[in-house]
Amino acid sequence: MSTINEAVNIRKITPVPLKRVSIDGGFWLQRQETNRNITLQIQYEQCLLTGRLNAWKLDWKQGDANQPHRFWDSDIAKWIEAAAYSLTTHPDDELERQVDDAIDLIAAAQQEDGYLNIFYTVVEPHNRWKDLKDGHELYCAGHLMEAAVAYFEATGKRLLLDVMCRYADYIDMVFGPGEGQIRGYDGHPEIELALVKLYRTTGEQRYLELCQFFVDERGQQPHFFDQEAASRGKQPSRTGYAPYDHYQAHLPIREQRTVEGHSVRAVYLYSGVADLAAEIKDASLYEACEQLWNHMVEKRMYITGGIGSTDHYERFTYDYDLPNDTAYAETCASIGLIFWAHRMALQSGDSRYMDELEHTLYNGTISGVSQNGSRFFYANHLEVLPAAHHFNTLKFNKTAVAEQRQEWFGCSCCPPNIARLIASLGQYMYAEGNDEAIIHLYGESHASLNIGSQHVELQQQTNYPWDETVSIQVSPERAAEFSISLRLPGWCRKVQVKINDQSIDCIPLMHKGYIRLTRTWSPDDRIELILQMPVEAVEAHPEVRANAGRIALQRGPIVYCLEETDNSTNLRDMTVSLDEMPQARHEASLLSGITILEGTASRSTLQNWEGKLYRRAVAAQDDEAKELVTFRAVPYYAWGNRAPGEMLVWVGKK
Amino acid sequence: MSTINEAVNIRKITPVPLKRVSIDGGFWLQRQETNRNITLQIQYEQCLLTGRLNAWKLDWKQGDANQPHRFWDSDIAKWIEAAAYSLTTHPDDELERQVDDAIDLIAAAQQEDGYLNIFYTVVEPHNRWKDLKDGHELYCAGHLMEAAVAYFEATGKRLLLDVMCRYADYIDMVFGPGEGQIRGYDGHPEIELALVKLYRTTGEQRYLELCQFFVDERGQQPHFFDQEAASRGKQPSRTGYAPYDHYQAHLPIREQRTVEGHSVRAVYLYSGVADLAAEIKDASLYEACEQLWNHMVEKRMYITGGIGSTDHYERFTYDYDLPNDTAYAETCASIGLIFWAHRMALQSGDSRYMDELEHTLYNGTISGVSQNGSRFFYANHLEVLPAAHHFNTLKFNKTAVAEQRQEWFGCSCCPPNIARLIASLGQYMYAEGNDEAIIHLYGESHASLNIGSQHVELQQQTNYPWDETVSIQVSPERAAEFSISLRLPGWCRKVQVKINDQSIDCIPLMHKGYIRLTRTWSPDDRIELILQMPVEAVEAHPEVRANAGRIALQRGPIVYCLEETDNSTNLRDMTVSLDEMPQARHEASLLSGITILEGTASRSTLQNWEGKLYRRAVAAQDDEAKELVTFRAVPYYAWGNRAPGEMLVWVGKK
Repeated sequence: MSTINEAVNIRKITPVPLKRVSIDGGFWLQRQETNRNITLQIQYEQCLLTGRLNAWKLDWKQGDANQPHRFWDSDIAKWIEAAAYSLTTHPDDELERQVDDAIDLIAAAQQEDGYLNIFYTVVEPHNRWKDLKDGHELYCAGHLMEAAVAYFEATGKRLLLDVMCRYADYIDMVFGPGEGQIRGYDGHPEIELALVKLYRTTGEQRYLELCQFFVDERGQQPHFFDQEAASRGKQPSRTGYAPYDHYQAHLPIREQRTVEGHSVRAVYLYSGVADLAAEIKDASLYEACEQLWNHMVEKRMYITGGIGSTDHYERFTYDYDLPNDTAYAETCASIGLIFWAHRMALQSGDSRYMDELEHTLYNGTISGVSQNGSRFFYANHLEVLPAAHHFNTLKFNKTAVAEQRQEWFGCSCCPPNIARLIASLGQYMYAEGNDEAIIHLYGESHASLNIGSQHVELQQQTNYPWDETVSIQVSPERAAEFSISLRLPGWCRKVQVKINDQSIDCIPLMHKGYIRLTRTWSPDDRIELILQMPVEAVEAHPEVRANAGRIALQRGPIVYCLEETDNSTNLRDMTVSLDEMPQARHEASLLSGITILEGTASRSTLQNWEGKLYRRAVAAQDDEAKELVTFRAVPYYAWGNRAPGEMLVWVGKK
Repeated sequence: MSTINEAVNIRKITPVPLKRVSIDGGFWLQRQETNRNITLQIQYEQCLLTGRLNAWKLDWKQGDANQPHRFWDSDIAKWIEAAAYSLTTHPDDELERQVDDAIDLIAAAQQEDGYLNIFYTVVEPHNRWKDLKDGHELYCAGHLMEAAVAYFEATGKRLLLDVMCRYADYIDMVFGPGEGQIRGYDGHPEIELALVKLYRTTGEQRYLELCQFFVDERGQQPHFFDQEAASRGKQPSRTGYAPYDHYQAHLPIREQRTVEGHSVRAVYLYSGVADLAAEIKDASLYEACEQLWNHMVEKRMYITGGIGSTDHYERFTYDYDLPNDTAYAETCASIGLIFWAHRMALQSGDSRYMDELEHTLYNGTISGVSQNGSRFFYANHLEVLPAAHHFNTLKFNKTAVAEQRQEWFGCSCCPPNIARLIASLGQYMYAEGNDEAIIHLYGESHASLNIGSQHVELQQQTNYPWDETVSIQVSPERAAEFSISLRLPGWCRKVQVKINDQSIDCIPLMHKGYIRLTRTWSPDDRIELILQMPVEAVEAHPEVRANAGRIALQRGPIVYCLEETDNSTNLRDMTVSLDEMPQARHEASLLSGITILEGTASRSTLQNWEGKLYRRAVAAQDDEAKELVTFRAVPYYAWGNRAPGEMLVWVGKK
C-alpha cells in the first residue's frame, strides 16, 4: 500500500503538456490526422443536424421537433474540448471559427444568475437542481468546464473560461453545507475532475473546496438521493432497478472498496477523487482509489481494457463476469479508465497504471472509432456473431449494442469522447520533474521538457507498436546530470537498452517498473530501447467463466482477434495450440498498416453431422472430425473495418 | 419423406388409453404419487389463494384486488385435466369433489350465448373477440375443452363436456369464412388440438372442420392480425418487437419450414396440425409437421429436450443458438414437444419421435418440478451461477428465470402442465393395432391391449431408467399370432432380446427403430430386453457456439449435470477426458433413488493467480496449473433439490 506522502512526493512529476509534445509520424499521427480532418468535422455536422448546437439558442418550445436532451450540453462541450486539443498542436482557422461561434452561443445562453444548461432552461425550467440524481446538470457543467480550460490553454481566449467561472461561482453558491444551500451532488460524476482542472487553471481555491464538498458528501447518510426524492414527493429508490451503487453513492467514497454500478460514472468519479487526493494530500482518498483500481483490474476488466459487463445500466456486474458476446465495455468507460490511470500513474510513479493505460488505449478505446474516423462503437464486444446481434437488436431495439460501428447515437457520448482522447494523446506520453524526464508511452514524437532549470528535447523514432525498437535522441541545452525514466511495459519480458550503442544492465536500474537512466546527458546522446515482442497467448483467471479453455493472442500492447472475412464462420469452434504460436507479419497496405498474425488452427469438419444436433463423442473420433487450417488474426482495435461478420478474441485452446 | 398414405396406414395404431395402463412401481409410480398427493393439492390451494378459482363466480369488479388475468381460465382447466387423469387411475372422492365444485362454478359462468371466459366477461366485456392476437380467448377455450374431455373419460360425467360443446358450437358460429363471421384465429394455438379431442370424443364433425378452418386461415394474406389491428384503430405490428412469427402466423402453415417464435405456441400448434393431418388425411400438413420437426430437433433443441433459447418472448432464436446459462427452455414447451412427438410417433411409426419424447420426458420436462412436488421451474437453465442469476433477477425482475424452483408464478402455466403430463403418463407407454402391440416407453407397468379381437395383457418388470433390463410378461387370452414391437431407444447401441430365455437376432426384425417380434404368443411368454447403458459423452454440433469444446454426460435416456453441492464452485473450469468415462452407481437413498456418475476431472488450481486477471499461457505450465479431482454428476432433472448453488450440464472436454 502506498501512502499519500509517497504519492505527494512523486506528485512533483507533472505531465508534459500537450503544446510541448509533437506527434510527428507513425501510428498516432495517422489517427490524429483522421480525427482532425474527418471525425471532428463529422461530429460538428451531427451536432448541427441533430439540433445539439442550435439548442444553445434556447428557442426550443414545447411541441417543437428535436427536444433537447438532458445531456446534449456535454456533447458540444466534448467536441469543443477535442477541437481545443487539436488546435493546440495543429492551428486551423476554420475549426477555431466553428468553436468561437459555438462558444458565442453558449455564452449568450448563460442566465443572469450564471446558470447554464439547455434542458433545464427550455424544457423543464421548473426542475432546476431538483433531480441531481438523474438530471446531469453538474455533469454537463463539468464537461463545459473541461472545454473552457482546454480552449483557454489552446488559444488563450477567455470567453468560455469566464463563462464557466461565473457558472462555477454560482454553483458554489447553490451547493454546500450552509443554510439554504443544497447539500448534495450529481448522480453522474464529472464535475469533480473538472473543478480540479478549473482550480489548476485559475488558482481559485473555492473550486477545489467545492470539489472536496462533492466528494465528501457522496454516499453519506441520511442519503441525499432519499432526501431529494422525498422533496419531490417520491419514494426513495435505494434498492431494485437502479440502486445507489449505480451512482457510486452507496457508501462514502473512503469506504468504497469494489467498483460497482455504471462504469463511466465510476471512472470519472475516481479520476476526480485521485486529483483531489493529490491536491489536498488526503491519504484515505488515495487509498480508496488504489483499492478500487486493484479491484477493477483484478476482477472486472476485459483484456481489451473494456469495463462494464452488461448493457443493463452499462454497469459492472460481479467478479469475473466478463461475457464476450454481450460485453458492454463502453468506449467512454475505457476512456475514463485512461483518465484515472493517468492520475494514478503520476501520483504513484508505478508503471502498472501506465501499463493499463497503454493497453486500454491500443485496444478497447480506439476500437470505438472506425479506420476512416466516421463511425463509432458505443459498446465494444469481444465476440460477435451477426445472427445473435441481429436478434439482440430486435430485443433491445438500440444501436448502442450494434455489431457494426454507427454514424451517431441518440445518446452520443462516445464519439466526441474518443475525439478528445485522440487529440490529446500527446499529454499522456511524457512527464517531467526536477531531475527526471519520464517516457510513459512510446511512439514517433518529440517533446520539450523542463528538467529543473534546464530545457531538454526528447525525440522518439520508432514504428511502435509494430516494431520493437525505440530510438530516443536526448538533447539537453547543455550537458547535465538528470534521470531519464523509461517505462518497461508490463507485457515485455525481455528488454535491451543501449546508450550511445553501449549496452546497459537494466536490472539494477528498475524503479517501480521504470528503467531509470541517471547520468550526465549531453546533446546528441542516443538511447536505443528494444522491447522484445513475441506473439503470446494469454489466459484468463480460471474463474472467468466465459474464457474457460480459451486463450487470447497478444503481441506487444496489441490484443488480436479473428474476423470472419479472414477465417470464414464459426470462429468459436477453432482451437490453437500453445505449442504453435502464430507468426507476426507487417501488412503495410492493410487497414492503414497493421501487423497481422498468421498460424495454424484446428477446426471441426462437418462430416457425419447431417441431421444431427448431438452425437456420441469418442476420443478416437477427434482427429478425423478436425482439420488443420491457416488462420489470420488482426488487431482487435482494427476489426469491423472490412466485410461485416463474426469476430472473436478468445479462441479455443487446443 | 414419408407420405400421408404411409402415415395414414400407420394411423391404425392407436395409443392404449390411460385407463388400461397401470403404473405399478418404479420411477413413475413415485412421481405419480407425489403428483397426486402433493402437487395437485398445492395447485388447488394456489388457485384458491390467488383468486383463480373464485374468479369463475364472475363477481370481480373494477378496483377489486386480484384482477383476473387473460389466461387464468387455462390454469384451472389444466388442473382439472390433471385431476381427471389422476382420477382415471386412482379414484379419490375428495379430489373428485373439488373438481365437481370447480366445474359447477365454470358451468354457472357460461353466458346465455354459450360464451365462457373470465377476463372478457368481467374485466373487458366490450373487447370480446376483439384481440384474438393477444387475448387468449380461444386458448382458454381449448384448455377447457381438453379438461372436459379428460374428465368425461375419467368419470363419465358430462357437465363440463356439455358446457364445452355448447361453447364450441358458439365459437363455430362466431368464426368462419361466412358473412358476419370472424375469419381469424387465436394468437396462442391450443384450440386446434382441443377441437380434435372434442371431435374424437363426441364424433361432431363440425369441431374437426372448425379446427381445419383455424389451421387453414393461419398466416394467410391479407393478414388477419393486420385487419384486427385496423378494426381497433391500431397500426399493424408485423415487424419489430413481436413480429407475426411469434404466433407462427408469418406464413400459411403448409409453407412453414422452420420453427420460429414462441416455443410453446409452436409445439401446441403443430400438435393440433398433426392431429388434423391424420384425421383429414392431408399430406401437405403432415409434411410441414415433419419438416418443422426435423428443423427443431436438428437445429434448435437443447440436449435436455428444452426449446426456446431466450427469455425474450420465450422464443426460438436462430439455428444452433443454445446458450446454457440464459436458456429459457420453458417447462410448458418441453411438454408441448412431448404432445407433438406422440402424434408424430403414432402417425409415422418411426421410433425417432418417441426417442425425443422419452429424452425430453426424463430431462427437460420433469426438471420442472421439485422432488417433493411442491416447487417449479418455468425456465430450465442448463447452467446456473447464482451470482449471474441474482443479477439477472435484478435485471429482469421476474421469477420465470429464477435459478431455484418457485412455489408459483404470476403466469403460472407450467405447474399445472407438468401435473397433467405426469398424471397422464400411462397413455404414452403402449399402442395397439390390429395385429400389433407396441411398447413405446419402458417402465414398471402393465397394460391391457386389444389386438384385433383379442385381449392381451403386457406386464413390464424393470427398474428402468436405472437398470438395463426390462422383463415383459405377455399374456394373450389364448395363443395367437401377432407382433410385439419394442422400441429400441436411439441412445442404445447394444441390445439383447430373449424370448423365453432364447436369444433373438434383432437385426432382421428392425422396423423404423422398433424390434418387431412376430410369432404365436402364448400365455406366460416372457420377453427379456437388455438395453446396454454405458455412460457416454455427447458432443454438440460444431456450430453450437455455447458447447464448443464441451461434452455432456448421458446414461440411457438420462442427461447428467454437476452441482456445486457435490463438486464445489467454478464448475465451468472442470474438464473431463473422453478416455476416462465416469462410473455409474445407484444411490437408493439419494433424491428418492438415483443413479449417479463418479469420475475424475481436471481443474485449475488458483496457484500464482494472486492479483492477476490475465497471464501468459504456456503449454508447460498447464500441468502444474491443474489438479485431478473426483467429481459426481446427478441426473439433470434432479438438480436443485439440495443446497442451492452452481449447476452445469456441458463440462469441458480435456
